[in-house]
Amino acid sequence: MPYHPLKFEYITHTFAAMANKPSIPKGTRDFLPVQSLKRKFIFDTAQSVFQKYGYQPIETPAMENLETLTGKYGEEGDKLIYKILSPVNYPSDLLDKIKLDPQQLSLISAESDKERSHFLGNYVENGEHAKNKGREILSELSNRALRYDLTVPFARFVVQNQNELSFPFKRYQIQPVWRADRPQKGRYREFYQCDVDVIGSDSLLNEAELLSIIDDVFVKLGLPDIVIRLNNRKILSGIAQASGLREHFTEMTIAIDKLDKIGVEGVKKEMIERGLPANGVKKALDHISRKAKPENLLRMLSGSLTGVEDAQRGVEEMRATLAALPTSLQEKVTIDLTLARGLNYYTGAIIEVGHAKFPSSICGGGRYDDLTGIFGLKGMSGVGVSFGADRIYDLMEELNIFPDSMGDQSTMMFVNFGANEAIKSMELARQLREAGYAAEVYPDAVKMAKQMKYANARGFKYVGLLGSKEIEENRITVKDMRSGEHNEVELKHLVEFVFDQSQNHD
Amino acid sequence: MPYHPLKFEYITHTFAAMANKPSIPKGTRDFLPVQSLKRKFIFDTAQSVFQKYGYQPIETPAMENLETLTGKYGEEGDKLIYKILSPVNYPSDLLDKIKLDPQQLSLISAESDKERSHFLGNYVENGEHAKNKGREILSELSNRALRYDLTVPFARFVVQNQNELSFPFKRYQIQPVWRADRPQKGRYREFYQCDVDVIGSDSLLNEAELLSIIDDVFVKLGLPDIVIRLNNRKILSGIAQASGLREHFTEMTIAIDKLDKIGVEGVKKEMIERGLPANGVKKALDHISRKAKPENLLRMLSGSLTGVEDAQRGVEEMRATLAALPTSLQEKVTIDLTLARGLNYYTGAIIEVGHAKFPSSICGGGRYDDLTGIFGLKGMSGVGVSFGADRIYDLMEELNIFPDSMGDQSTMMFVNFGANEAIKSMELARQLREAGYAAEVYPDAVKMAKQMKYANARGFKYVGLLGSKEIEENRITVKDMRSGEHNEVELKHLVEFVFDQSQNHD
Repeated sequence: MPYHPLKFEYITHTFAAMANKPSIPKGTRDFLPVQSLKRKFIFDTAQSVFQKYGYQPIETPAMENLETLTGKYGEEGDKLIYKILSPVNYPSDLLDKIKLDPQQLSLISAESDKERSHFLGNYVENGEHAKNKGREILSELSNRALRYDLTVPFARFVVQNQNELSFPFKRYQIQPVWRADRPQKGRYREFYQCDVDVIGSDSLLNEAELLSIIDDVFVKLGLPDIVIRLNNRKILSGIAQASGLREHFTEMTIAIDKLDKIGVEGVKKEMIERGLPANGVKKALDHISRKAKPENLLRMLSGSLTGVEDAQRGVEEMRATLAALPTSLQEKVTIDLTLARGLNYYTGAIIEVGHAKFPSSICGGGRYDDLTGIFGLKGMSGVGVSFGADRIYDLMEELNIFPDSMGDQSTMMFVNFGANEAIKSMELARQLREAGYAAEVYPDAVKMAKQMKYANARGFKYVGLLGSKEIEENRITVKDMRSGEHNEVELKHLVEFVFDQSQNHD
Repeated sequence: MPYHPLKFEYITHTFAAMANKPSIPKGTRDFLPVQSLKRKFIFDTAQSVFQKYGYQPIETPAMENLETLTGKYGEEGDKLIYKILSPVNYPSDLLDKIKLDPQQLSLISAESDKERSHFLGNYVENGEHAKNKGREILSELSNRALRYDLTVPFARFVVQNQNELSFPFKRYQIQPVWRADRPQKGRYREFYQCDVDVIGSDSLLNEAELLSIIDDVFVKLGLPDIVIRLNNRKILSGIAQASGLREHFTEMTIAIDKLDKIGVEGVKKEMIERGLPANGVKKALDHISRKAKPENLLRMLSGSLTGVEDAQRGVEEMRATLAALPTSLQEKVTIDLTLARGLNYYTGAIIEVGHAKFPSSICGGGRYDDLTGIFGLKGMSGVGVSFGADRIYDLMEELNIFPDSMGDQSTMMFVNFGANEAIKSMELARQLREAGYAAEVYPDAVKMAKQMKYANARGFKYVGLLGSKEIEENRITVKDMRSGEHNEVELKHLVEFVFDQSQNHD
């Protein structure tokens, strides 16, 4: 890649303009080392589980063609897509240019000679036409956009690279996405998604496998006590049919999605206000608010919805999924018929994971048939879940369950007593690194107090003191930063000493 | 994070428009699993070395405020910055809106009630004013931009978070950057940088440490035969002074940067054409084209540039840096006085790493005093290098030196003979995963040939065949995919069997 270093003169020129403290856009974040390490811990944990189940990583570009994204997230979603401007011009400059000289503009914005002559050929010096031309060019200039989620890019990826993939294709993807949502607590404009999906297989074993993955990831993160809520669109659809609400399916699901917020009475009221027949509403809510152990609930549903084909299929799908789970995992799964999660999208299983100590879901997903149809590849069913890495981070912070080792990756710092001592210390540091420890020499021969302050702030386990006298005597003083103890160690035994000490500590 | 699922109706609506094969923007790339794994290998290798030297990860947002980036990369660089448009409007819509109803526009684009009333208060229904207002709003709408490199965001980060950091602050950062460069072979519009820097220390031990890091990273990647070229801006500056070219320093360095392309005569010609005194040009080129072992070269320079303070300091800095290196590394370092690398930026050491089998540099960097001055924090000297991950990838592919284990992370696939067999196989897969192996059950009970084709494509080491007969007899047939051999294994000994086999193979 090309290196474009800073230019000094520009730095100087803009200094005046930058007198204010610098900042970052609303809804975005810097991550300090400790935060970054904790985030990496979450990503690495998830990734190691995904890989054990045979899922493979892919990466897609942050920039997609605008047409790839537009129209996929509903009207509301479309408004939240960040568009990228080709860097040739500011729109404010363009305003003038279009008025003054559209010909010049097309010359600037065209990317190749061919495009350029195309623009010129079509150019007619007519006010209205020029305006339209300008508009066309402007839309050319913003024909790229930032990824809004990982699902649509994944569908695009599968279609575009279908000849390189073996199906069923099991992939995971951990990358940032961007949404122009109004920033608020826990909601960011730039955040990571951590998605795991299978595409090209209808088997319900995939649903079971994903539930196992969810369980494994949260156990490894130190969150074994999750609650997995499971639903199936086909059951909901069957309930609507059986209650005479077939034509009101969308309204019904929008309303029941609010059940935990506004209660059964609230949902009932809303549905009736929306014009749903009171009779059907009552029937549907009777079905939906049922609670029982999965096995019993499924038996009840199957009995009370006899003859409703959709419902029976949904019940069968759920049974098969649950049957493929180990017993320990079955206990974490509850069937929640109120779970809708953007139902127009899912076509089978709907999955959501929660935790008693967290107000919103920390993972969710489901089955969506014909995922790649939008991009011209039919008959590819997909099922997947997305881990809410930022929420999981917040929850783990709140519970204070990140491993202790997170902050102090660094084993030993050598105090810098001057050029010669430092060079000798660098040799020792090298030996420690080769043995697998993180070690560093303080770069400047400044006051001891300053060096020790740094060692404390960084959380080193040991500080090595190698002065000229020690070098003469082939030994080093090692201070244990936890106990405060000092040890004299022969230089050739330093690695061994650190090894023994860390064995004793752990 | 909020989940915004696809909406089915929109999918259907846009299907017609998407009949063409989907694509991604020019200069961006998708990464397939094997490519992603190889990229991860490079990043993980670099990261593990950085951490051993006590460098800590940080992350900054992809989006920065435009003013943070503008003016930092020279006029040319500024043109390559991708600006982001707030997603409220298309610029093409704006054209109309500004003409028709700027009041409405300000209402749409304002983010809060306060901003909204501010806009309204200032609004005067006057053609010219409305146009200016519109322009102002447009510039508001594109006041964010995509990160162009990691250095400027790092400087911004240090200033903004200075109270949270311990100095010297040693950080690494592995994130993508975006540049609207004309795409060509090996040059992308979205690519990763992998930067490692120390800030807040003038010590030359940092330069030595970075050279050690470079060596360690490339040795671990399987590229021990790199060539590290080293220069120092102070020496170049001293040579310019001694040759009477003090006022032509920039022209001189721009010209000598081309030495390997156009040769000494070419450089000479260019400098004279640019109006540099022929006498001085000869003198400077005599100094610069000297080649010798580092020690000898430094002695010669020191002798021939007596009294030129800058040059003497540069020689001293280089000596101190080299002295702090282990002998094995000293041998990989050559002094190259023609190395300039954006000299207006670096103030001390200049570092560039090459490989005989690759045409361009694969890593580079240097010392830049006062890195954070632009953001109001004075006196912070920084030194760092950036690894060209994409180029290193290309080189490693060309040399075919990625580890074999890269593709086949997956140990065992179980053939799916039906629901019952699959559930039993899932139990075995779970046992293998617990023992650290990647294992999966083929999700669909389709034809054996199809399942085996998948197993081959994915590169599994073993395929497990667990039919109803095998289940009855508590055993499984294991096919070794490399030897073609079949083994009958008792179910309770499967993990042990896989362990023994993999020991024998490795």
